[in-house]
Amino acid sequence: MSRLFMFEKPLGMRDTLPELYEAKEKVRSSIEKEMKQWGFQFIETPALEYYETVGTASAILDQQLFKLLDQQGHTLVLRPDMTAPIARVAASKLFKDQVPLRLAYSANVYRAQQREGGRPAEFEQIGVECIGDDSVSADGEMISLAISSLKKAGLEQFQLSVGHVGFVNELFVQILGTEERARELTKFLYEKNYVGYREHVKALPLSSIDSQRLLAFLELRGGPEVIDKASELVENGKGRAALNELKLLCDIIKDFGESGRIKFDLTIVSHMSYYTGILFEVYAGMVGFPIGNGGRYDKLLEKFGKSTGATGFAIRLDRLLESLGNLGEPEPVTCILFSLNGEKKLANLQHSAGKTGNGSSSRTSAQCAILMLAPIRLLMSFTLLGRRECNERTADHRDAKGQDFYRSS
Amino acid sequence: MSRLFMFEKPLGMRDTLPELYEAKEKVRSSIEKEMKQWGFQFIETPALEYYETVGTASAILDQQLFKLLDQQGHTLVLRPDMTAPIARVAASKLFKDQVPLRLAYSANVYRAQQREGGRPAEFEQIGVECIGDDSVSADGEMISLAISSLKKAGLEQFQLSVGHVGFVNELFVQILGTEERARELTKFLYEKNYVGYREHVKALPLSSIDSQRLLAFLELRGGPEVIDKASELVENGKGRAALNELKLLCDIIKDFGESGRIKFDLTIVSHMSYYTGILFEVYAGMVGFPIGNGGRYDKLLEKFGKSTGATGFAIRLDRLLESLGNLGEPEPVTCILFSLNGEKKLANLQHSAGKTGNGSSSRTSAQCAILMLAPIRLLMSFTLLGRRECNERTADHRDAKGQDFYRSS
Repeated sequence: MSRLFMFEKPLGMRDTLPELYEAKEKVRSSIEKEMKQWGFQFIETPALEYYETVGTASAILDQQLFKLLDQQGHTLVLRPDMTAPIARVAASKLFKDQVPLRLAYSANVYRAQQREGGRPAEFEQIGVECIGDDSVSADGEMISLAISSLKKAGLEQFQLSVGHVGFVNELFVQILGTEERARELTKFLYEKNYVGYREHVKALPLSSIDSQRLLAFLELRGGPEVIDKASELVENGKGRAALNELKLLCDIIKDFGESGRIKFDLTIVSHMSYYTGILFEVYAGMVGFPIGNGGRYDKLLEKFGKSTGATGFAIRLDRLLESLGNLGEPEPVTCILFSLNGEKKLANLQHSAGKTGNGSSSRTSAQCAILMLAPIRLLMSFTLLGRRECNERTADHRDAKGQDFYRSS
Repeated sequence: MSRLFMFEKPLGMRDTLPELYEAKEKVRSSIEKEMKQWGFQFIETPALEYYETVGTASAILDQQLFKLLDQQGHTLVLRPDMTAPIARVAASKLFKDQVPLRLAYSANVYRAQQREGGRPAEFEQIGVECIGDDSVSADGEMISLAISSLKKAGLEQFQLSVGHVGFVNELFVQILGTEERARELTKFLYEKNYVGYREHVKALPLSSIDSQRLLAFLELRGGPEVIDKASELVENGKGRAALNELKLLCDIIKDFGESGRIKFDLTIVSHMSYYTGILFEVYAGMVGFPIGNGGRYDKLLEKFGKSTGATGFAIRLDRLLESLGNLGEPEPVTCILFSLNGEKKLANLQHSAGKTGNGSSSRTSAQCAILMLAPIRLLMSFTLLGRRECNERTADHRDAKGQDFYRSS
C-alpha cells in the first residue's frame, strides 16, 4: 500500500485513544448505572440489519445509510439508530413477557457523511426505550431520567427544550388543510430556518388570521405560560389534548424537582420522522448541536406488527464529552522496572495486583505498566516507580550496583 | 414489509437479550480490570476501515470480509480483527510516545458466513497487544495475562497449547527445500487434518529419514520434554533458536506458577497468517473451538512502516461465556407500583436511588423497575414489591382500600 494511504481511515471514522477512551468509559458507566437503577435492562443488537426491516423503519435519510449486499444478495445496513432495532427485538421476542418493557443500550450507530466536515460517521449513543406505556408519566420518566443521567455524568449546565409533534401537526393541518402542506411547512422547522418559514407562510393563500396564527406559533418558546398561549391558537380536539399532555408533564417534572431544567419550545420537530407526541432536545453549554434527544413514537411498533405506545431518548456520548470539557487527568500508571532474575518477583507482584493495599506503596494506583526495556532486563534487581517519576527521573533510578535504570531516550 | 421477513436478521447476526448481556458485561469487566491492572490501556478503532489498509493487512480470508463502497468509491471493510487496526494506530500515532506499547480492546469483529451454520458473523473479542518488545518475556507476559484474565472471569477448567510457528517453518523448509512446499504442508496443520498430513508426507519424494522426521513432528505434543524431542529433529540455527525461546518461556510460566495450565503442541499453526513466533490457543472444558488465541507477529507492523516486535492475544467472549456454562441468576428487579398521586413520592425514591442503604427495605437490589400499569395508576396509594412477590402474588397486594393492585393477566 502507498505510504500516504497507509494510515488513512474512511470519511468520518475516528480512533479513540486511551485518554478519551477512559473518559468515555467513565461517563458511559455512570449513565448506565443510573439507567439500571431506574429499572432499565440493557440489550445489544447486531451492527448489520436488513435494509427492508430496520433500514426502512429507521428515520435516517437513505443517503446517510451505509449499505452493503450480503452473499445471498440481500441489502444490509449498518444500524443508523437503535430505536428501530430495539422495536424489532421488543416486538419479536420480549413483548409477551412483561409490559411495559424498559430497555437500554449503549451502542455505536453509523451515518455516512458526504464529505469530511468534522462530523463523525460512527458515534456512540446511550439511551433507553420504554415500550408499552402510552401515559404522560412515561414521557415524564424519560425526561427525568435524561436529567438524572446527565447530572450523574457530571454535567452541570444543561437545558431541555420540550415540544409536541402532535400539536404542530394538528395546528398545521387545521390551517393548511392537508398533511402534505403541513409537512412542507414542518421542513422549515426541522432545518430551524425561521426566516424561510416566515416567507413561506406569507406566500401562502391564507386568511390574515390563519397567517397570523402560523407566525404567532413561532413565538411559542419559554416557560409553562407557553402552553396557555398555545391553547389560544387551537380550538379543541387533538391540539388541546396535546397541550393537556404538556401540562401534565409540567407537573411531573415539577414533582421531580427539575422544572428549572425545562423550557417549552413548540417549534421543535425532529428529523426522527417516527415521533408522534411529546419530544425533547438537550442542549449544554457551548456545544452547538443537541447532545441528546428523545420523544414518543407510538406508530413505530406497528411496523413490527404490534400496536403500542412507546417513548425513549438517546444521549450522544461524543457531544456529551465535548460539553463536559476537560477530561481530567488520566489514571496514573505505575511502571515496574525489573531484571531478568526479577521475573519471579514480578510474577508475585502480578498475582497480588488487585488486592487492595497489598502492593508496594508506589503502586497505589489500580494500574501498573510493566516496562520491560531491553537494557533494564540486564540489571540484577528490580524496583517500582511511578510513570511521572520515571519520566522526570526524580525517583531513585539506580539499581543495587549503582547502574542507571533508564533507557537512553 | 412482509410479516415473515419482519423480524429477520442477516445471516450470523444475533440479538443479546438482558440476561446474556449482563453475563457478558460481568465477564468483560473482570477481564478488562485485570488487563488494566497489568498496565494495558484500552483503545477503540472504527468499525469501518479501508480495504487497502486494514483489510489486506488482516489475516482473514477475503470471502469472509464484509465489504462495501463508500460515497467516494473506495472499498471499505467491517474490521475482521483488531490486531491490524491496532497496528495501524500504533504505527501512526502512538509509537513515538512510549515503547513498548501496551494496548487493549474489547470490540466486535465481523466475519461473513457462507450459510447459517450457527457461527456468528459478529462477535466480541477482548484482547491485548504488546508492541515494541521482541523478548520472550513479552510472550510470557501474554500467556500469564491470558491465564490470569480467564481465572478472574471465573473459568476454572482450561488449558493453553503453546507452539512456535518459527520452528514449524524452519523444519519444513529445511526438509522440503522451498517456502511454497512448506506452506502446502502447513495447510494440513491449520485444518488439523493429520491423516491428510501423513498421506501428503508419504507421497513426497523424500529420504526415509526426512519422511520420518516429518511424521515424528506430529507427535510433538505434551510437557516440556517435547522441546528436547523437537531438538532432535532440527540441527541448529533458527529451529534451535525457536526451541530455546520455548525453553525460556517454560521458565517464565513456571515462575508465574502456572506450568500446569500449559502443554506444548508444536503442530499448532494459526489461520492468522501474520504470526511469526511463539503462539498459543486456549481450550476450555466442553467448547470444541479455542476460546482464545494469541502469538507473536513481528512482521505486521512493517505493513504500516515500522519494524518492531509485537505479540498479543484475544479471547472470544461468546465462547468464553459458553464454557463458563450457567450464567447465574440475573439481578433481582424490584418493581414499584404507584398511583397517580404517588408520583411525587416516586420522584423522591428515584432521587434516593443509588445511595446505599437509603432505599426501602424491599429495594435491596440495585435495580428497580417502575411498572406503571394503567389500572394501578388509578389507585390512591403506592407500595414496593419485589418482582418475584409480584409474579407470585405472595406479598400484600392490596392498597389501603383493599383493591387488587395487579393487572389481570
